[in-house]
Amino acid sequence: MTAYDRLLARFSRIAALGEAAAMLHWDASAMMPLGGGTARGEQLATLAGLSHEMLTDPCVEDDLAEAEAEGEWHAANLALMRRTHLRATALPVELVEATARANSACEKVWRDAKARSDFSAVRPFLEEVLRLQRETAQALAARTGLSAYDALMDSFQRGVTAAEVEPVFEAYAAWLAEALPRAEDIQARQGEPLPLRGPFPAAAQRELCRSLSLRLGLEESHSRLDESLHPFCGGTPTDVRITTFYSEADPAKAILGVLHETGHALYERGLPAGFARQPVGEAAGMAAHESQSLIVEMQACRSDPFLRFLSGEMRASFGDDPSLDAGNLARNWRRVERGFIRVDADEMTYPAHVILRFRLERAMIEGRLEVADLPGAWAEGLRVLLGITPPDDARGCLQDIHWHDGAFGYFPSYTLGAMAAAQLMKAARAAEPGLDAALERGDLSPLLGWLRREVHGRASLLGFQDLMRAATGKGLDPSDFTAHLSARYLAE
Amino acid sequence: MTAYDRLLARFSRIAALGEAAAMLHWDASAMMPLGGGTARGEQLATLAGLSHEMLTDPCVEDDLAEAEAEGEWHAANLALMRRTHLRATALPVELVEATARANSACEKVWRDAKARSDFSAVRPFLEEVLRLQRETAQALAARTGLSAYDALMDSFQRGVTAAEVEPVFEAYAAWLAEALPRAEDIQARQGEPLPLRGPFPAAAQRELCRSLSLRLGLEESHSRLDESLHPFCGGTPTDVRITTFYSEADPAKAILGVLHETGHALYERGLPAGFARQPVGEAAGMAAHESQSLIVEMQACRSDPFLRFLSGEMRASFGDDPSLDAGNLARNWRRVERGFIRVDADEMTYPAHVILRFRLERAMIEGRLEVADLPGAWAEGLRVLLGITPPDDARGCLQDIHWHDGAFGYFPSYTLGAMAAAQLMKAARAAEPGLDAALERGDLSPLLGWLRREVHGRASLLGFQDLMRAATGKGLDPSDFTAHLSARYLAE
Repeated sequence: MTAYDRLLARFSRIAALGEAAAMLHWDASAMMPLGGGTARGEQLATLAGLSHEMLTDPCVEDDLAEAEAEGEWHAANLALMRRTHLRATALPVELVEATARANSACEKVWRDAKARSDFSAVRPFLEEVLRLQRETAQALAARTGLSAYDALMDSFQRGVTAAEVEPVFEAYAAWLAEALPRAEDIQARQGEPLPLRGPFPAAAQRELCRSLSLRLGLEESHSRLDESLHPFCGGTPTDVRITTFYSEADPAKAILGVLHETGHALYERGLPAGFARQPVGEAAGMAAHESQSLIVEMQACRSDPFLRFLSGEMRASFGDDPSLDAGNLARNWRRVERGFIRVDADEMTYPAHVILRFRLERAMIEGRLEVADLPGAWAEGLRVLLGITPPDDARGCLQDIHWHDGAFGYFPSYTLGAMAAAQLMKAARAAEPGLDAALERGDLSPLLGWLRREVHGRASLLGFQDLMRAATGKGLDPSDFTAHLSARYLAE
Repeated sequence: MTAYDRLLARFSRIAALGEAAAMLHWDASAMMPLGGGTARGEQLATLAGLSHEMLTDPCVEDDLAEAEAEGEWHAANLALMRRTHLRATALPVELVEATARANSACEKVWRDAKARSDFSAVRPFLEEVLRLQRETAQALAARTGLSAYDALMDSFQRGVTAAEVEPVFEAYAAWLAEALPRAEDIQARQGEPLPLRGPFPAAAQRELCRSLSLRLGLEESHSRLDESLHPFCGGTPTDVRITTFYSEADPAKAILGVLHETGHALYERGLPAGFARQPVGEAAGMAAHESQSLIVEMQACRSDPFLRFLSGEMRASFGDDPSLDAGNLARNWRRVERGFIRVDADEMTYPAHVILRFRLERAMIEGRLEVADLPGAWAEGLRVLLGITPPDDARGCLQDIHWHDGAFGYFPSYTLGAMAAAQLMKAARAAEPGLDAALERGDLSPLLGWLRREVHGRASLLGFQDLMRAATGKGLDPSDFTAHLSARYLAE
């Protein structure tokens, strides 16, 4: 056995533990009775601890030094093994444990503080989280040669830097300042859409959601659709588990939510089986993943052709009401609105919420902003971007779990994904002239075939920017996204 | 940290991996789409491999040699740790791997051979399985000081030997030869019961099964009820997962099946939380486990008082049909019948099926019977015990998975459990005079409270015979079981 063969075997076992953990996480959200929570915590902590021990075992360093890999894929795999090992060994155990404790303590306090909109309650806990995140960022930066903030962002999306993100985001902010009032004006002149008229029984929603998911290309034998409070796509590449939540008042939440998660699921299903349970065989990162959910949900499924198909499906499921016309669905599901809450935002204003968080978290990690000044900076930042000021911190800097759980550097992925989705869609349309005609029949296969070749099949062979270049001929370019939004929201 | 503290931590982690595996097994049976099977195999193999490595790590031997434990429970825990380690290190890795391969190969061939009733197809595979089981038994016997067959039986139920089982089984066989014709005669004179008349929609069955399970004492927050092809009770002590299978033609399968699994589940729920994830905190073995499912299903729930309660519940769920009278339920669900198939057998003839297998597998392990002679020995053995001869091997020695999957020494547990259930029920009735009146109200709590004190709460503190002595004042005594059967089947 060569050193590289030993590493292949070790990383495969580590990944199998990760798969087991993924299933237990899904179960905890979708199946587990409450009383199983404590034991589940023990099970997951044990799996995480063993994974870390297997990754940081002294023999791994020797094998990594000695290993040689042949061919593009194996070379990339070995490089990713080295990266994973470097990041795992960059942090002293005491820092990792202190971080886990601080994140957990802050997250608990945050849940209550958010409910009461009491920033002062969470402030000391968030200060401790930030202190440890700064330390973590420094330690990672020292080992990787990245800047402190980039070292954190790199944990979620490899292959893109803040220096690349910043001009993209600034350009978008400038475009939005001009475009948003125009979109609002056009929308106001179109008048209010009809509210969707049901009833929308949960069972019928479930059946429709599942059939849409399968129609888009997910296989019955490799997927499930269940319910959880917070929808997500979990599981493993050969066994993807989508969850959603059915509101009988508003079927859009489940339908659009499942279409979104189906995009994530199709990405996992398209990863190359030959590199299953190896670093190079994983999805390329959070921004790449979000590009796949958004290209399905926002680009394909909210397009006019697909909405015409979906309108027919909804009429068949819920009755033949005029509010389910494709045009009315479009007016309901493609509205811009300046709001306080990121997760409720439309695709045009969503990036403003992300840009705000990117600016603030970067300033916090770089020591230019302290927790005490966060509520004020938030309010001012939102005013500059969207012209509105949150009435309280619950609708301001307390709204998201991310920072309170130690996830600094994650937010940009949402908007990088949205922009990448538009850019990929443009390239796919150029390559597959029948793409939109197929969508009108509810057929995603031309788009999916292209994505399988250009994105899914490449897994983690390339970093984010290189993946965009390989698929579209250029690095991330926000103009495809603004062109998409202009066509959708600024056409008179 | 003392050596014993290190062992506590290590065994707790090993058990957490076991809990993770238990959940993944449940998921594979109740939730997983078919396409997830290969990856699930990898996940489970990785968990099993890591557990074995953690158990056989050289430092464990040193810690076990050095460790001291104070108090009855910790002393028993340390003894069980030593036993577990001894058994895990008794077998050479090559033997373990050859056994896994041979079992898996034989089990695959067996499925097909059973369907075609073709013993010759499975014969060479079963010969290899047996060869390795004999080798395993010898190796375990050499380390434990037990006889070869006892060493295998000990894997499933600690604390009972073939020398103790044999006279118990022989006495039963002698009793049955006389009792069975009498029971059949009495039954014939009573005439045929009315077939249960439905309809029995699966959804209503599910609701009834769940409500019965909760009524017997299982908590909503610590349990689930789902569907699988082969019903079982899985999960972990704080999160038990029962499965069943609904036949709309025959509600007995699901109802009695769920009552049976609820007995298993209540045992898990009653294990002492303070020794969770330690060897001494586990259930006492397979016979002990079966005693708990059978005391609930056979002793409590098929009793006249409980059937009167259940009759009311079934009428409420399925309509007020005379076939759902308590007396008619009893005539349907307490019938004796000489049959070929163990899993379909009634409680009086079931032990005959087990005694047959006990005799044959013991002879095979001790080299007194070869695989080639198994079909003939089976047919002759069944004729002696029940006076019938299987028409083919599918209904003979091919019917059970056990031997074909390498499980030699398991079968006695079923009947030891049935006998223990009767003995425990008699002791519980003596200690709790209101037990039967409570059953008539669907209230298991007097019995359950007694079982929690006398059985569940003792976990693995005692071996099987000592547990029976502690709970009932005597080792296993088949006369309580025959007295139970006499009262139920031989009263004119």
